[in-house]
Amino acid sequence: MTTNTEIKGFEVIERENGFEVFLEGRLLFTHSTKHPFVFVGAGEETIAMYRGNFKIDDYIVERIPLRFAQVTKQGDSVQIGLRHSKNDNEVLSIELNRDQDGMRASFDLKDDSINRFWMRIHADKEEKVYGCGEQLSYLNLRGKNFPLWTSEPGVGRNKNTYTTWQADVKDKAGGDYYNTNFPQPTFISTQKYYCHVDTTAYADFDFRQETFHELQIWEIPKSILFECGSTYKDLVTRLTERLGRQPELPDWTYNGIWLGIQGGTDAVEKKLDHALSKGLKIGAVWCQDWQGKRITSFGKRLMWNWQWNADEYPNLDTKIQDWKEQGIKFLGYINPYVAEEGSLYKEAKANNYLATKEDGSDYLVDFGEFYCGVIDFTNEAANKWYVSVIQTNLIDFGLDGWMADFGEYLPTDVKLSNGVPAKVMHNAWPAIWAKVNHDAVKESGRWGDIVYFMRAGFTGNQAYCPLLWAGDQSVNWSLDDGLASVIPAALSAGLTGCGISHSDIGGYTSLHGNKRSKELLLRWTEMAAFTPVMRTHEGNRPDDCFQYDGDEETLLHFVKMTDVYVELAPYVKSLVKLNATEGIPIQRPLFMEYEQDPKVYDIQYQYMLGSDILVAPVHEQGKDSWEVYLPEDEWVHFWSGEEYKGGHVEVAAPIGQPPVFYRKASTFKELFAKISKK
Amino acid sequence: MTTNTEIKGFEVIERENGFEVFLEGRLLFTHSTKHPFVFVGAGEETIAMYRGNFKIDDYIVERIPLRFAQVTKQGDSVQIGLRHSKNDNEVLSIELNRDQDGMRASFDLKDDSINRFWMRIHADKEEKVYGCGEQLSYLNLRGKNFPLWTSEPGVGRNKNTYTTWQADVKDKAGGDYYNTNFPQPTFISTQKYYCHVDTTAYADFDFRQETFHELQIWEIPKSILFECGSTYKDLVTRLTERLGRQPELPDWTYNGIWLGIQGGTDAVEKKLDHALSKGLKIGAVWCQDWQGKRITSFGKRLMWNWQWNADEYPNLDTKIQDWKEQGIKFLGYINPYVAEEGSLYKEAKANNYLATKEDGSDYLVDFGEFYCGVIDFTNEAANKWYVSVIQTNLIDFGLDGWMADFGEYLPTDVKLSNGVPAKVMHNAWPAIWAKVNHDAVKESGRWGDIVYFMRAGFTGNQAYCPLLWAGDQSVNWSLDDGLASVIPAALSAGLTGCGISHSDIGGYTSLHGNKRSKELLLRWTEMAAFTPVMRTHEGNRPDDCFQYDGDEETLLHFVKMTDVYVELAPYVKSLVKLNATEGIPIQRPLFMEYEQDPKVYDIQYQYMLGSDILVAPVHEQGKDSWEVYLPEDEWVHFWSGEEYKGGHVEVAAPIGQPPVFYRKASTFKELFAKISKK
Repeated sequence: MTTNTEIKGFEVIERENGFEVFLEGRLLFTHSTKHPFVFVGAGEETIAMYRGNFKIDDYIVERIPLRFAQVTKQGDSVQIGLRHSKNDNEVLSIELNRDQDGMRASFDLKDDSINRFWMRIHADKEEKVYGCGEQLSYLNLRGKNFPLWTSEPGVGRNKNTYTTWQADVKDKAGGDYYNTNFPQPTFISTQKYYCHVDTTAYADFDFRQETFHELQIWEIPKSILFECGSTYKDLVTRLTERLGRQPELPDWTYNGIWLGIQGGTDAVEKKLDHALSKGLKIGAVWCQDWQGKRITSFGKRLMWNWQWNADEYPNLDTKIQDWKEQGIKFLGYINPYVAEEGSLYKEAKANNYLATKEDGSDYLVDFGEFYCGVIDFTNEAANKWYVSVIQTNLIDFGLDGWMADFGEYLPTDVKLSNGVPAKVMHNAWPAIWAKVNHDAVKESGRWGDIVYFMRAGFTGNQAYCPLLWAGDQSVNWSLDDGLASVIPAALSAGLTGCGISHSDIGGYTSLHGNKRSKELLLRWTEMAAFTPVMRTHEGNRPDDCFQYDGDEETLLHFVKMTDVYVELAPYVKSLVKLNATEGIPIQRPLFMEYEQDPKVYDIQYQYMLGSDILVAPVHEQGKDSWEVYLPEDEWVHFWSGEEYKGGHVEVAAPIGQPPVFYRKASTFKELFAKISKK
Repeated sequence: MTTNTEIKGFEVIERENGFEVFLEGRLLFTHSTKHPFVFVGAGEETIAMYRGNFKIDDYIVERIPLRFAQVTKQGDSVQIGLRHSKNDNEVLSIELNRDQDGMRASFDLKDDSINRFWMRIHADKEEKVYGCGEQLSYLNLRGKNFPLWTSEPGVGRNKNTYTTWQADVKDKAGGDYYNTNFPQPTFISTQKYYCHVDTTAYADFDFRQETFHELQIWEIPKSILFECGSTYKDLVTRLTERLGRQPELPDWTYNGIWLGIQGGTDAVEKKLDHALSKGLKIGAVWCQDWQGKRITSFGKRLMWNWQWNADEYPNLDTKIQDWKEQGIKFLGYINPYVAEEGSLYKEAKANNYLATKEDGSDYLVDFGEFYCGVIDFTNEAANKWYVSVIQTNLIDFGLDGWMADFGEYLPTDVKLSNGVPAKVMHNAWPAIWAKVNHDAVKESGRWGDIVYFMRAGFTGNQAYCPLLWAGDQSVNWSLDDGLASVIPAALSAGLTGCGISHSDIGGYTSLHGNKRSKELLLRWTEMAAFTPVMRTHEGNRPDDCFQYDGDEETLLHFVKMTDVYVELAPYVKSLVKLNATEGIPIQRPLFMEYEQDPKVYDIQYQYMLGSDILVAPVHEQGKDSWEVYLPEDEWVHFWSGEEYKGGHVEVAAPIGQPPVFYRKASTFKELFAKISKK
């Protein structure tokens, strides 16, 4: 006996011992007493944080399969009552409803001892899944599990590398393939649906099983939303329709590179003049240390009291205006913590704006040889105050943008004003921090003009953060933590709804013997020319990092690649506009453009820049040619003008000529041809 | 309302929502609907073996608390019927019975989908636990969990050491604190009871919780036995009464050191003559390569075809007799695998004596650049055949002992003759291998005369293996894998019922840059003089290891320490006899002798040699003095004759004078004084 209940697009088919739920033909849930689709239970977690690195263990006290289901149709919704055994009470009730074009599952828990939830979603053997925020090691997530918890991404991120081992032993900081500043409980399946879980609790999405995906969440989630799409673009359009979209970047973005330099007004001016004299186009100068710096064993760190430091930057107030007149914006730096020595800390503490210990006493977070208070953004007054700090000290002072750093360090043992356990707020923090920045900019009438960039993220960054950056890569060639890793990072973030990303040119972290080589810097630069924003970073230990002005050849390489970037602007602007209106990312996995080609679904170190340019960055040392996979199309090699039809091709790839191809049919083909002829 | 059911020494007190079970006043189980004491469930394990190193993962599909208990007295037993919820069927029934002076819990499972079992045993906050076989990193097991699965012990055994990391990355061989050749599901609590689980399935004893110990077993165990004792000695006596006891070592053991040398008859003879000429007392010569050797990248390995190799050892048959006449026994080597190139493999294969793949085809195990068949000891004919191989090729040939190596490599995907899954037989294998040796020796009428020594173990080694050795330490000073580690190894094995242990003098494994220094060898030798057996090993890479004859000073140090060992024989013999009759180990943790002193319960790098000698081996490099903790007593420092009353004392500890003290009241004090005066 089977009963079909179809409610506007989704269908519940009851069978003897269970049921199946389909959404537009995709089988999502399959349930039977033998293979139930929901498990609930109780766990006792241990969460230890050391400088943004978390050790999280769970002792699962119980995990109960909810084997018995009673399905009832009630108007436009389907109720599924779940119990462990026939004669037990109902433990959980699930309501399925149409939500616009999707299906939303909502939950009603009848047993308050439950704090763990596992749901199985039907999987096909060949299915692939993507997203889960910004994932740096894997684009296709099938075959692994992904704990979703915003944290430091790790130094090395691969237990088999010596860098990782040293970082683990010395600083508990090595990380692993899943560590990321920006996780998100959202994935896209090659069954052409997305699944988004409305939760900020710790989650672990397990894609290791052949016949199901298992989503683990450390609460009963508010809801789970599924929606189908006709193409992968349609899917991200639908997803960002729900979650929000990044605005367009302001026009000045494309004026040139954003030069990350430091050291005070004079030093910065000298460097600018030198670079300009060589012909480098500069869109902005980015001075992290505009508010002062300190030296730690990790390297140069900042003062963390967010206001102009007139000792280190004399006349910055007028200088900013001079630079603006030259077409160069000034960018600064801020994060959501205040160092205990600073005036902002004192003000925040006096007004009870800081998160505290459970007993109300001061809570200071160790950031590596200095200590900070955590602004409690769940306190509306604190939130407004920090918005005003940004407005007064940054915007009104003349900044046109900043790195809005961190957001991942909310300790799980602080007490917050809204009374919600910090372990539940931890993942929410990055998007709250994004919104604080957003509100400051928006209220100042500068939304879409001022640009801040973040590494931390969660559901909400789509609407509140105009630009991601890929965090702190090691200054090396490693797949998991070097140049290559920023490619899957941008692609997975894009599939999660954040379509504008970029990275520190040359990487950031020089530790455990890693020093940035000239070659790495040159390769990273040529890749960055084919992303929405080019920005340099001196690194945590500038003296261990080759710099853009390290020698004449390098500076001229920057001039050349920035010229390419600037000339590509009309094309990239059109992509950025599409991202703002339809949520379609700038950097796209190949399958988003060539979904009929089965070979492209696991390619994670090549990407499409829009529909018309294919980029295959050289991410290994000592190469002068590179193998590229081209989906079937008519391609023109950017540097030689040679034409290709598709397949695996080997192309010359000397420094300065990264493997880039454009579609012969592109409406921008004349622009591309013009650029490449130079 | 409470109901007490007392059955000869154990007592079940029923309470409103549960019950408590006491054995001689010790609270063992406490059960309520809120805090049940048994959980059952289903798991899907993944077990991958690489050269004896296992990666074991478990996907716990369900873990069901059995909250509802019905207690019934039936004659002399108590039945406890357990169900998940009130209206469910009974899932498991437990029967508690008096068993001699102990209490045995037996199980009757009503649901055959269950393959996981967790039982909580009441714990006090301050309680400590010991045993679980041979544990090399921790004597007191409280605060950690201990997976119990016989395997290679690991190279490094500490994820924070560079040796471990290299071993992991290169060979998956680094191991961790719990890896051991000899695990056993048996522990001793400071509540003065032992707990022994009758199972050979994978188990994980978790001592991390404050209020309970949780025993995880991957089957419903046959039974669990608890027994109380008045002292720790009483406990091991009672435990070995059940599990068996090692026989006394033959008198020739004490004639001198067992010299581990190799290279053929002439080379061995030369080395013997040289050592004898310097005055070294030699009890036996141990030639691993009596059956031939091969060279691999790991180092020198053996031929694995267990018979005299007359090419490498010409005239060995008569030479053995010559040596015997000089008072020097000849020891060899065997293990339970046969190399595929050898005659024994051919014979075993022809007779179907080898474990096979599931489809019956050949199964070869990778031992590191060579491959072997696994004798299927569950096949009675194969078992008898291997007994006869030992009798014919080893005993009849003239060997007086051998290393009975390995036993930990039974792959979990072989098919065995008895039809039991290999994952259940895996842990059983070491004791079966011990019994094969035992049967060969016993049937030859040589039990208590021939000595074989094993590193692998499980329940059963007590009765079937006369001597343990601590496995393959790294040739370094690391706590987890060097000199120090063999001390907790001997103590925990002793508390599990195997009271006679020893180690490779100088350690075995030279890999990843570890080379055996002269100092390490000298310190290891002086410790070995205060253990039941002194035996050297050249190491896996003899050229990277300083040897006993590396220089004159070293050889004379061996002469001196062996003299001490030989002269201590009357005392050690008395201990070995006590071990044979009462199961009380030769090397004992301090708390076994001084249980009233709370300071001694966590001391794991000092031990008592019997009741009268306290040994505190120097296990760090470059020391000439050493801090020792002495329980309150009257102590005499072995080398200076100085007297101490107890407490922390610092003593001179130059090479050759290891920190050793004897009790002034000892009946052997004249012997000790005589030895120390030399």
